[in-house]
Amino acid sequence: MTTHDILFMPHNRKITVEDGESIIRAAMNAGVHINASCGGDGVCGKCRVLVEKGVIEDGVSDRLSDDDLEKGYRLACLSKIKSDLVVRIPVESSMDTSALSMQSTPRKTAKIKKMDLNKLKEEGLFLPAVEKYYLELPKPDVQDHLPDISRLVSYLKANYNESRLKVRMSVIRKIPDMLRQNDFKVTATLARPVQAGRKTHIINIQPGDTTDKNYAIAMDIGTTTVYGQLVNLITGDVLSEAGEFNGQISYGEDVIIRIVYAEKPGGLEELQAVVIKTINKIIEKLIKKGKVDIENISTITIAGNTTMTQLLLRVNPRYIRRAPYVPASTLYPPIRAVDIGIKLSRHVAALVYPIVSSYVGGDIVAGVMGSGMYRTEKLTLFLDIGTNAEIVVGNRDWFACAACSAGPAFEGGGITFGMRASKGAIEDFSINSQTYEPMNITIGSVRPKGICGSGLITMVAVLFEMGVINSQGRFDRTLSTRRIRETNGVWEYVLVWQEDSQIDRDIVLTEIDTENLIRAKGAIYSGFMTLLEEVGLGFSDVEQVILAGGFGSYIDLEKAMIIGLLPEIDTDRVSFVGNGSLMGAKMSCLTNRIRLDVVNVTKKMTNFELSETPSYMNNYVAALFLPHTDMNNFPRLKARIDGRKEYLAKESS
Amino acid sequence: MTTHDILFMPHNRKITVEDGESIIRAAMNAGVHINASCGGDGVCGKCRVLVEKGVIEDGVSDRLSDDDLEKGYRLACLSKIKSDLVVRIPVESSMDTSALSMQSTPRKTAKIKKMDLNKLKEEGLFLPAVEKYYLELPKPDVQDHLPDISRLVSYLKANYNESRLKVRMSVIRKIPDMLRQNDFKVTATLARPVQAGRKTHIINIQPGDTTDKNYAIAMDIGTTTVYGQLVNLITGDVLSEAGEFNGQISYGEDVIIRIVYAEKPGGLEELQAVVIKTINKIIEKLIKKGKVDIENISTITIAGNTTMTQLLLRVNPRYIRRAPYVPASTLYPPIRAVDIGIKLSRHVAALVYPIVSSYVGGDIVAGVMGSGMYRTEKLTLFLDIGTNAEIVVGNRDWFACAACSAGPAFEGGGITFGMRASKGAIEDFSINSQTYEPMNITIGSVRPKGICGSGLITMVAVLFEMGVINSQGRFDRTLSTRRIRETNGVWEYVLVWQEDSQIDRDIVLTEIDTENLIRAKGAIYSGFMTLLEEVGLGFSDVEQVILAGGFGSYIDLEKAMIIGLLPEIDTDRVSFVGNGSLMGAKMSCLTNRIRLDVVNVTKKMTNFELSETPSYMNNYVAALFLPHTDMNNFPRLKARIDGRKEYLAKESS
Repeated sequence: MTTHDILFMPHNRKITVEDGESIIRAAMNAGVHINASCGGDGVCGKCRVLVEKGVIEDGVSDRLSDDDLEKGYRLACLSKIKSDLVVRIPVESSMDTSALSMQSTPRKTAKIKKMDLNKLKEEGLFLPAVEKYYLELPKPDVQDHLPDISRLVSYLKANYNESRLKVRMSVIRKIPDMLRQNDFKVTATLARPVQAGRKTHIINIQPGDTTDKNYAIAMDIGTTTVYGQLVNLITGDVLSEAGEFNGQISYGEDVIIRIVYAEKPGGLEELQAVVIKTINKIIEKLIKKGKVDIENISTITIAGNTTMTQLLLRVNPRYIRRAPYVPASTLYPPIRAVDIGIKLSRHVAALVYPIVSSYVGGDIVAGVMGSGMYRTEKLTLFLDIGTNAEIVVGNRDWFACAACSAGPAFEGGGITFGMRASKGAIEDFSINSQTYEPMNITIGSVRPKGICGSGLITMVAVLFEMGVINSQGRFDRTLSTRRIRETNGVWEYVLVWQEDSQIDRDIVLTEIDTENLIRAKGAIYSGFMTLLEEVGLGFSDVEQVILAGGFGSYIDLEKAMIIGLLPEIDTDRVSFVGNGSLMGAKMSCLTNRIRLDVVNVTKKMTNFELSETPSYMNNYVAALFLPHTDMNNFPRLKARIDGRKEYLAKESS
Repeated sequence: MTTHDILFMPHNRKITVEDGESIIRAAMNAGVHINASCGGDGVCGKCRVLVEKGVIEDGVSDRLSDDDLEKGYRLACLSKIKSDLVVRIPVESSMDTSALSMQSTPRKTAKIKKMDLNKLKEEGLFLPAVEKYYLELPKPDVQDHLPDISRLVSYLKANYNESRLKVRMSVIRKIPDMLRQNDFKVTATLARPVQAGRKTHIINIQPGDTTDKNYAIAMDIGTTTVYGQLVNLITGDVLSEAGEFNGQISYGEDVIIRIVYAEKPGGLEELQAVVIKTINKIIEKLIKKGKVDIENISTITIAGNTTMTQLLLRVNPRYIRRAPYVPASTLYPPIRAVDIGIKLSRHVAALVYPIVSSYVGGDIVAGVMGSGMYRTEKLTLFLDIGTNAEIVVGNRDWFACAACSAGPAFEGGGITFGMRASKGAIEDFSINSQTYEPMNITIGSVRPKGICGSGLITMVAVLFEMGVINSQGRFDRTLSTRRIRETNGVWEYVLVWQEDSQIDRDIVLTEIDTENLIRAKGAIYSGFMTLLEEVGLGFSDVEQVILAGGFGSYIDLEKAMIIGLLPEIDTDRVSFVGNGSLMGAKMSCLTNRIRLDVVNVTKKMTNFELSETPSYMNNYVAALFLPHTDMNNFPRLKARIDGRKEYLAKESS
């Protein structure tokens, strides 16, 4: 991967970016503001920059005059970086250079934590749940009447030291013809026991040698989206990935509505059938993309929240949503995939991740496993942020967990121009500290359509730090900018003027939107603080934070700390695992030990019902400010804000 | 059970019989000949006897003159014994009294060996495979959010010290509603592991308290007949029994024809469906007769020969009949009964007895278990006689087994008037040593239709001992009786004249019939003698003989020794287990240990292929005589025959 160093002048800020990145994104990540209304689409023409040194591609636009072009001006949003550069932000699209120090913090996302396959191998934990052996069996004759299965079993014992073998009925059914039609040369598929000393199952038998083709599927059943990976059990590599909206979405967006539907006659069966259909679509895609034969897929591991798990397995979820919120079971036995309608070979077992409680499900348990939290000595805070936030605190010896409802703000719900993190969503933002003009960057660098969750966090954080909104989320009505205005009695900030937007309207952030975000972040903050208190700890004891969920990857950590979604912590101690549920499911395919360990982990997990913990509400009320009632918990932010105030005082004096 | 002592005069032979038995059967069992042509139907009127003392019922017939009746004569076949009796056989229907000593041996059947439930209990082996517990679970509340299954599992641990529990998916599906609709009062059904330390499965959950209703089904799948028993797992009692012809019979009588059919496209599936239909019919009968709810039947154990087992489980039996005669597997995993179409609750596992080889099947293994042979120190010969005879030699430490084809003679096949052991079959027989007039007794005491297997053995034995046929099975052409005659070049003995028969024809025994019987008994005799030789033993080493099979119960042991089907052995050392397969299946329901032991027994069983053992043919040829080429192996018979010859020599001198 080629990288280049970009020096932004007059800020004198340097950043290293990948080859081909746009200048505007490099500037955003460096914390350098460039006015940009159109999200990076090249339409507004406001992001003029002078490329003083180095090579770029593109960047040319009819929004630039011939004179500008000749001087070396380019549109930052269209310019692709191809070498080290020196880029000057022109005064008119920047600010009073003395105010440069007042910029918001550079973008800082959590480091991405991936499963370390090599480490797994080194530790001897690369133990796929299924293995294959190629066998050239001796043929029976007058001296040797061994039954077919005994022949197979003896050979495995003699040649591979495999004992304690148990055979599936389907193998017994296949073996007589299979042996004789293939000159007694076959491949046996063995499923390992989770506990040492238990039996290994011979689950399949195939003609000839297929030992180089041994695959598994890992799947995460999200309320909204279902993701799958096709895993090569010989190399550990992911061969293909695919996602689909969970077909149950048409029955309602959240789990409660689905539970209500499942209570109707036939509703449960219908919802099961629908999610199985989604799973089968994904499997079809995975096979097609991965170019494998379905007969060589021998196991599937599935993780999902408690409701998704019960719906998948056709277990009535009625009591999940009724006090005292009791799920049917924490552990689920392995079942045959075909028995619930999954279109895989008959021999494939579906392993379903255990759950902890009605609101801390298999997706979270999988995240704890997949992220390695279950093995670390470090006191860890695991956060999966979505409409519901799940929180796990602990280390390899103990775990406390809880769930709280954050509301849909992080997924764009309840926000005037909120939208999911898809093309056209403003995902990054800064403002000029003097003109209050915005710099919007959208997913896909197209003209803006709305605001996604991570964009919203950044927006509110920047507006707060720049003094545009106060700690209660109210706009400063005294600022001289036409971007802040009152419409129908609600104050708002205009992010994108109609002409630069894709939706033929001004895109705004209202005080009501900000309030919703504050409530959402307050719920989460109160959630983990209460949970920490319940186990006699404080945030200062936390040695690392692991963020999970589709949302977490885009969060600008510094901004999350500004709004008080997270307490201040060294960002190096924060990592992001992406879809922890899928990661855990994959890990379970690659290392059989997980299946044993997860039972113990689940047993060690103590669930706290925050709704029944009195301090939760107190913590929540205290968190309904930016960043919090008690600013002392946010010393770095406090120092920056104090510094800014001092500067402004100096300026005006 | 009331019994009476009957003294037969002038023979001066005494026998004890059950109340209500007929005089003619008592005479037959005592070895007292009374002419009787009509099988015991009261038609021929030949069995006149004088009741000198005691009380009888019936016995009156228009075949007796008023004078006879007044004197106390009755028809032996119609007279039911109601007290101790003195019965005189009149000279005209008996013989020269000096020849009384020349009577054949009294009937002697093997003692019937039943499963000793009390002993099982004493030894701590009454361990049913499934057990029930009634549970009044604490209800969840704000303080107690235990998931439903955890609630169940903790309760079982706390109250019954049950740990290492595993839960079936079906229980997880049922539990949420089941608990709440029954005030948390439910009954859990637990299936015990076969190996200590393995997990106990919670397989079912029912409303309220059903702990007093816990049933199992034992089933024997015979090639001809399928038998079932409904077993009460609380008391160990058999609540009902039922049998049906195996529906596969219409596809062919023997296993080979069925295998051929199974090789046709769809044939295997069809034969499986047909036997499952038979099984379901039996289950229906068992439930109806036993008056139990199908929901309370929690396990089924099935035993059958190798072909029946493979057809039942839909495993292609093609290679069973092709050299080198290799079955698919010896062990079969437990399967869900519903998965093969058995109409029992979804939670019921079907356990199928392991087999040893293509021709020593699960019925024999079940017999070895059920008869207790697997636990005895005594060197035992286990014989299951039918079209195919299966032989097991050994004791608790080792087992050698073999199968040989006896041909259908024992089931009436290949015998001119042969028939199955059903109503109208001559089952017992003797002759007057001077007039050669027969005494026929039929099943059901009706006019004769034909000869069944045990009748045939007795017939040939008696005719041989009385000198009517020689050791090659040829009739003595010099005897002055119209019952021996030549028809179309074949010599025969007329058992029943047309007027006394039910089929409007003379019923005869031909020399060809005798030859067929000699071949059948020769095959079996050679079978066990060869097997004993192969393990370095002789018949004198055998400490006990166990006979199994529907046929064995009726065999007159002394007669079987006369024809050389069995070597001479003290009849007290011979026992009969009836349907050993069903007995083993039942035992497996009652004592879970069997399921572990049977695996070891099966492993210890060494199979010998007699067709590949050169001495088998030599032994066979030597056995094609009555009783054998070497008369010295039959000293008791030799002594009797020598005595008879001496007597005749004396008479004629």
